Amino acid sequence: MINTQISLLDPVHESLQEVEALLTAQVDVNRSSLERALSRLIGAGGKRIRPRITLLTGSLLGADHKTLLFLGASIEMLHTASLIHDDLIDGALLRRGMETLNTHWSPAASVLVGDLAFTRSSQLILGTASLPVIGMFNETMDRMVEGEITQFAKTQGATTRAEYYDWIKAKTASMFELAAGAAARLSPVDEDVINVARTFGYEIGMAFQIMDDILDFTGEQTTLGKPVGNDLRQRTITLPALIYLETHPDDPDLYTLINRSPIDESNIDRLIVDIRRSEAIDQSLAIADDFLRDALEALGYLPQAPERQALAKIAISLVEMRFSSVGSIIRKYKGEMKHE
Amino acid sequence: MINTQISLLDPVHESLQEVEALLTAQVDVNRSSLERALSRLIGAGGKRIRPRITLLTGSLLGADHKTLLFLGASIEMLHTASLIHDDLIDGALLRRGMETLNTHWSPAASVLVGDLAFTRSSQLILGTASLPVIGMFNETMDRMVEGEITQFAKTQGATTRAEYYDWIKAKTASMFELAAGAAARLSPVDEDVINVARTFGYEIGMAFQIMDDILDFTGEQTTLGKPVGNDLRQRTITLPALIYLETHPDDPDLYTLINRSPIDESNIDRLIVDIRRSEAIDQSLAIADDFLRDALEALGYLPQAPERQALAKIAISLVEMRFSSVGSIIRKYKGEMKHE
Repeated sequence: MINTQISLLDPVHESLQEVEALLTAQVDVNRSSLERALSRLIGAGGKRIRPRITLLTGSLLGADHKTLLFLGASIEMLHTASLIHDDLIDGALLRRGMETLNTHWSPAASVLVGDLAFTRSSQLILGTASLPVIGMFNETMDRMVEGEITQFAKTQGATTRAEYYDWIKAKTASMFELAAGAAARLSPVDEDVINVARTFGYEIGMAFQIMDDILDFTGEQTTLGKPVGNDLRQRTITLPALIYLETHPDDPDLYTLINRSPIDESNIDRLIVDIRRSEAIDQSLAIADDFLRDALEALGYLPQAPERQALAKIAISLVEMRFSSVGSIIRKYKGEMKHE
Repeated sequence: MINTQISLLDPVHESLQEVEALLTAQVDVNRSSLERALSRLIGAGGKRIRPRITLLTGSLLGADHKTLLFLGASIEMLHTASLIHDDLIDGALLRRGMETLNTHWSPAASVLVGDLAFTRSSQLILGTASLPVIGMFNETMDRMVEGEITQFAKTQGATTRAEYYDWIKAKTASMFELAAGAAARLSPVDEDVINVARTFGYEIGMAFQIMDDILDFTGEQTTLGKPVGNDLRQRTITLPALIYLETHPDDPDLYTLINRSPIDESNIDRLIVDIRRSEAIDQSLAIADDFLRDALEALGYLPQAPERQALAKIAISLVEMRFSSVGSIIRKYKGEMKHE
């Protein structure tokens, strides 16, 4: 999602390489096949959005460079750990464009590789040597686990937006909040600046997850790295499906999915096509845009600098690629970018 | 293993109640069935040997009371977390005298409950507000996961004592080392006292695990809370089997188990009976006694006080119940006990 042009202009391009080195150093591939599996998962990469946000926020606000690297690496490792256990829990088939551990591996292997990633992320966060930051890290981990438990314990999928928001806050936005908020906490700034950074992280995290959930409906399998409509096939009811439900309260197949009852694949296919064609996609995009707008508004309270511009770019690029109409705040940042 | 008499004389009896309260407060049973499951597992109790060692060591060396409670609760929670994931990994059927999660629950549920226990133990250790102690905690967690991974990655069971010692050090002794060592770290004492406490914890942990592995052969199912010879049935080769192997290098069934090849249950039954009757049990007991002796020797370098006596009692009670011949160091402590 971060295109090459942006990467080249990226003020934290070199720091990201250092984060990569820290991540790689956590795993000795010569020890076992499980460690090689973790190394491959880390190497498969993804977009490194979380450490990028950490590095940019901390660099913008004056955090110590080395400490930031530990924070960024720790958050990326926590993200990897949660992917591994979540894959086992959700039974997802494809992730990061490659087959997950769980398609070939026993649950035991996935548990262990996930535990290894968790313990390595704990080791990395200790590198910040900051008790408040370790506290924020633990709290995030806790929210994520609680979120998974709440989701797992439910006998049916979400039926309200509030439920959906709680769920994506726990699983996604909390980690983005940590990425920006903990970087601010490591910086010589007041509590209200830390809160602004947290807000920025939270809002961008919400926008990011909603975009991801929209893309699950609108994308192509090759781009997504997973089957189209995968969430719905997994009985995961996301925002587009919820909005579709509001306007089609009588769709029998959607209720069947929400209630996790048996259903023909062909009926799911029909539902995915109908949701794709409905107003639900545009409405979901508008909501993602609202979160983006709030993220950019928060950003406006942070000092103006190339790092702030890069944070704005990340935020915009997450939403914009699928959404042509941009609001006034986005235009403001776009204007600033032109004058860089 | 701690009998009632010792409990009544226990200088940390009340502190242990406070640890229980801290543990209980970590889980809101009204949230979900998974949280109720964790609460039941915590409530099922076990002997609380680890927090007991923490409380006694810290109290002996002058650590802050409240900080010690967090450390003790954190270690017990970590222990619980490791039991949950290990059960999933090992497929063990019975634990703490009750059925494990995994007999009824999906792997997903076990992963989540284990993750919850891990994250709560991380929260608790943060209560010590000590970066060095959090570091020791993380290192222990890391060793345990690495130990599990090493074990899992092996295509066959242990064939040497060295392999076995590495394994029980990672899975058991490291946590006992943490229990005593981190308590010392929280106390106003020199580095060498901390090292003595770590050594005591390590040695008692080794003795404890070896006794546990012996009891797996010699105990009765009702006492053990799990089937007799369970380890061997799970293809886990422990000290008695390794010593038996040294004197019976041609036993075909033992090699079949070590190589994890298919084998009839009746052949395992025969092997368990033969190991029970062999010298391997007494020799294993002698080795446990050696570790106990080293633990008590380390203890001799700590200040003499009721807490030290209580630590000695715990150590002795772990080994003595099955082993009548006690060495001179044990007699020394027994002498001291009489004069209390």
